[in-house]
Amino acid sequence: MVSDSVDHPPFNETERNAVYRVIAERRDVRRGFLDVPLPDDLIGRLLGAAHSAPSVGLMQPSRFIVIRDYGIRKAVHEIFRAANSRAAGSYSGEQAERYSGLKLEGILEAPQNLCILCDAGSERGHGLGRHTMPETAIYSTVCAIQNLWLAARSEGVGVGWVSILDPAKLRDLLRVPDHLTLVAYLCLGYVEGFASEPDLERFGWERRVDLKAVVSYDCYSEGCAP
Amino acid sequence: MVSDSVDHPPFNETERNAVYRVIAERRDVRRGFLDVPLPDDLIGRLLGAAHSAPSVGLMQPSRFIVIRDYGIRKAVHEIFRAANSRAAGSYSGEQAERYSGLKLEGILEAPQNLCILCDAGSERGHGLGRHTMPETAIYSTVCAIQNLWLAARSEGVGVGWVSILDPAKLRDLLRVPDHLTLVAYLCLGYVEGFASEPDLERFGWERRVDLKAVVSYDCYSEGCAP
Repeated sequence: MVSDSVDHPPFNETERNAVYRVIAERRDVRRGFLDVPLPDDLIGRLLGAAHSAPSVGLMQPSRFIVIRDYGIRKAVHEIFRAANSRAAGSYSGEQAERYSGLKLEGILEAPQNLCILCDAGSERGHGLGRHTMPETAIYSTVCAIQNLWLAARSEGVGVGWVSILDPAKLRDLLRVPDHLTLVAYLCLGYVEGFASEPDLERFGWERRVDLKAVVSYDCYSEGCAP
Repeated sequence: MVSDSVDHPPFNETERNAVYRVIAERRDVRRGFLDVPLPDDLIGRLLGAAHSAPSVGLMQPSRFIVIRDYGIRKAVHEIFRAANSRAAGSYSGEQAERYSGLKLEGILEAPQNLCILCDAGSERGHGLGRHTMPETAIYSTVCAIQNLWLAARSEGVGVGWVSILDPAKLRDLLRVPDHLTLVAYLCLGYVEGFASEPDLERFGWERRVDLKAVVSYDCYSEGCAP
């Protein structure tokens, strides 16, 4: 029953390198979106990649809203502006200046946005795996987002995750029912190019840490805290 | 400043197919682990893939515990057995029979396990993106898990996510400090093969739903509920 793997030859070196390449060259894109809509079949492939993600109990709780309407994106952008103005107010001095110089979303430039929801209380999967850790329903949806992000990178499509939004206002705007959790709001589109480093590193906001600093063996070690 | 993308040619068709292939052929593996330890450099590549994941504000909150010690895995397995026995008691009739026939973890068979934590309160990233949606810190760690899962598949390494565990007992065992969130416990190892369908579908627990059933346009549509 298990040995139905004959159709799956090992990944060759070229394929394996492509997987590591897409992981390394994926970026959170907030600028340089082109005013060229993505074809429907490409959006379908990206959603298909998301929908293939692991899900606890095979519940597949993720729901997707593809947003192309300019009026709706304009309203989302207003929600962003209000939230970002409040966030900016929490910084001072040089950090405040740096924050105000950052470009943190491409809601209007990217011709399509994507809102991703989770039906965390769904009966699908019959609760398997959720008795002890019910949060895995929402984690399943996050796995779907990462799948989509990587597939998009391989298609030359930039993706940016915008979390500077008042979730309640966004839910009202998109008519999200109470039983669904709002997980993410993404901007998607063809881009001028992909940067070699994360924007937040390029513009001096934060530096990446060394992998060694975050790994322990067998038990958690206290030194593990960058 | 943006056009530093000259080093990044588009993904060619072979590379793009490899990305979609790894997404399609990734499985949640609970059986068929081989008693062959993964080399250190391979584990390093997998952790590197996880560590390259997007993170809100570039905070990189993920922490990893690589567990190879058999005594610790045995103790984790006991925690699983207790939780699974309670979970099994919540089903009745035919469903209870089906549940008891499922193999849901490979804690002892897989020569290495991996516990993944999140330092959600870290000052790294200076709170950027977390004023409105602080849950994105933990979501960053879930993105790291999905990166690792895909990299592992391309290396012929099976990964299984075990959520049938009492988080408090697991934290005690692995000496996880209070300020870290326990996000996931994985089993990792070389495997006999990868199945074509999810185990839970093969063994009649749940069926996958059609993508069309989970997509809306511009606003959430009520029909979107499989």
